[in-house]
Amino acid sequence: MSEKAASSRPGEFSLIERYFAPLATSAGAVHLQDDAAVFTPDTACELVVTKDMLMAGVHFFKNDPPFEVAQKALGVNLSDLAAKGAEPKGYLLGLGLSKDIGEEWVAEFCRGLKLVQDQFQIDLLGGDTISCPQGPLLSVTAFGQVPKGQVVRRNEAVAGALLYVTGTIGDAALGLKLRLDDELAGELELSAEHRDFLLNRYLLPQPRVAAVSALREFAVAAMDISDGLIADLGHMCRTSHVQAAVRLENVPLSDAASAMIARDAAFRETAITGGDDYEILAAVMPENAVAFEVALQEAGLSCAQIGVLSAAEVSEDMISLSLNGEAYALHGAAGFKHF
Amino acid sequence: MSEKAASSRPGEFSLIERYFAPLATSAGAVHLQDDAAVFTPDTACELVVTKDMLMAGVHFFKNDPPFEVAQKALGVNLSDLAAKGAEPKGYLLGLGLSKDIGEEWVAEFCRGLKLVQDQFQIDLLGGDTISCPQGPLLSVTAFGQVPKGQVVRRNEAVAGALLYVTGTIGDAALGLKLRLDDELAGELELSAEHRDFLLNRYLLPQPRVAAVSALREFAVAAMDISDGLIADLGHMCRTSHVQAAVRLENVPLSDAASAMIARDAAFRETAITGGDDYEILAAVMPENAVAFEVALQEAGLSCAQIGVLSAAEVSEDMISLSLNGEAYALHGAAGFKHF
Repeated sequence: MSEKAASSRPGEFSLIERYFAPLATSAGAVHLQDDAAVFTPDTACELVVTKDMLMAGVHFFKNDPPFEVAQKALGVNLSDLAAKGAEPKGYLLGLGLSKDIGEEWVAEFCRGLKLVQDQFQIDLLGGDTISCPQGPLLSVTAFGQVPKGQVVRRNEAVAGALLYVTGTIGDAALGLKLRLDDELAGELELSAEHRDFLLNRYLLPQPRVAAVSALREFAVAAMDISDGLIADLGHMCRTSHVQAAVRLENVPLSDAASAMIARDAAFRETAITGGDDYEILAAVMPENAVAFEVALQEAGLSCAQIGVLSAAEVSEDMISLSLNGEAYALHGAAGFKHF
Repeated sequence: MSEKAASSRPGEFSLIERYFAPLATSAGAVHLQDDAAVFTPDTACELVVTKDMLMAGVHFFKNDPPFEVAQKALGVNLSDLAAKGAEPKGYLLGLGLSKDIGEEWVAEFCRGLKLVQDQFQIDLLGGDTISCPQGPLLSVTAFGQVPKGQVVRRNEAVAGALLYVTGTIGDAALGLKLRLDDELAGELELSAEHRDFLLNRYLLPQPRVAAVSALREFAVAAMDISDGLIADLGHMCRTSHVQAAVRLENVPLSDAASAMIARDAAFRETAITGGDDYEILAAVMPENAVAFEVALQEAGLSCAQIGVLSAAEVSEDMISLSLNGEAYALHGAAGFKHF
């Protein structure tokens, strides 16, 4: 089923040579001159692999700048690795392009990849480019490594552990609200600075790679927050067979998020159930709590203790929420449903 | 950007638990209970990774049976690994589903994955599932391993090497012709057996995993034939800086392909330029030719010597074709253009 209609874009091999090969500098990628790449983790290390796909119209807007889409596509994968305590090493890129995507889009997209590569010292290892009528579609497989046996799992949280999150929670979901409703920022009398901060947190998630050694050393379980704090905590509880109590007044909010919630308290629910934060949720035993906090601080990351895990009891809710001592009930469905 | 409209399908987590988790039996996949998998190549081995995406309407037909689509999606990736001399070990699966895809499709798709997993002793390591309006979209990242330093490259062919192909060439492209034109088989008076053989070769490529040790031991360069014999030989020549002379009478054809070419000689060009064969093209030095042939035979694979490589001369065509001593000219564009 070959393609007939012409695009304004150069062909696949020209694109690879011009834009992608310069991103593939490791020996195992042989300048993308082969159909497969060689990658070998360091001695005494294990490979950690993850795959996240982003589809235009589902995970980003078709008119988002490709420079930023690239950073998001790589960032969300590096975020998964970071939560496992894995140092990022490289990635494979699957790219599905619709005919209306021109060379300039690809050039800008690759400029975004390069920025993230340089930031985290990683390489493009290989990939595949296909025609995708409703693209762009991005399918990234990221490779990281951890010393053998030190991977941090989502499903190994235990009763008694304290729950931590990095950074601030809810900014991306609130940013998306602003993005979907041009008038909302005005109605809420939000400052331009706060509005731009939230919009940017949605568009450009920051993978918490700096957290990897603190997580490896002190966390019993961790995951990144992509589906929303409550949904992801639910995944951790369900797979670890524990339950959680969260004090919402301890969930860290940015000034911009606080400003929105001060105008309308319903945005608190958006903040704790909305996706795309890409902060890290970690379970840490109380005896390691101080050391964990110090290690994150030394890595340049803020963190907050938001709750505690206990043994699962079938008759109760998996997650109980309180705000300043009062039980807090959710009104909507918690967390991003993928389809 | 969450999804609102309901599908008849169970949610992502139910699908994973019911259909995908049973395919993920290795320890590093933790039953798909985490966002990342751990994979460690054997000591003294390197990891070989490859990624091939398949999009409905581009690489397969939306109404193709999911049982067979799954086999094709995995097969084309294992084919890439095989051509590198790599033993397949596992894979990550990215799955983009449109709303009209129901549970039965997923169940049948997973039955196809299981068949290939059992055939080659590989495991599902992890993946991602997204909404994809024009899906199904399949993005497979396959993991294999080779003893360190023994990967077989596409770009290391040298002048003087003999060119070999496994199996028979052109069946898939001729099968696609039959598929796209219901009346063609009748017009050509093709037997039902020949027609079904060719249709099946398009739908169900067989990765030549059995060739890996012969390739590692005796080939200086190799690749699988996915874009068509001529286009892929072109890639090998271009990346290796050599040129090729091919004797088309030596290119192995199935009885079914021969029957089509006997009716209309133009189908020879289809056979040598059409894609999706997933046979292996290998360059072998003359002193290793017999040992290579014997090794493939012992692995249960047929092969044929179809030509020879020489030093690249800028003034000449990269590939010269002859048929029974006469120069053979191509009329169409050679090989599958990806977009």
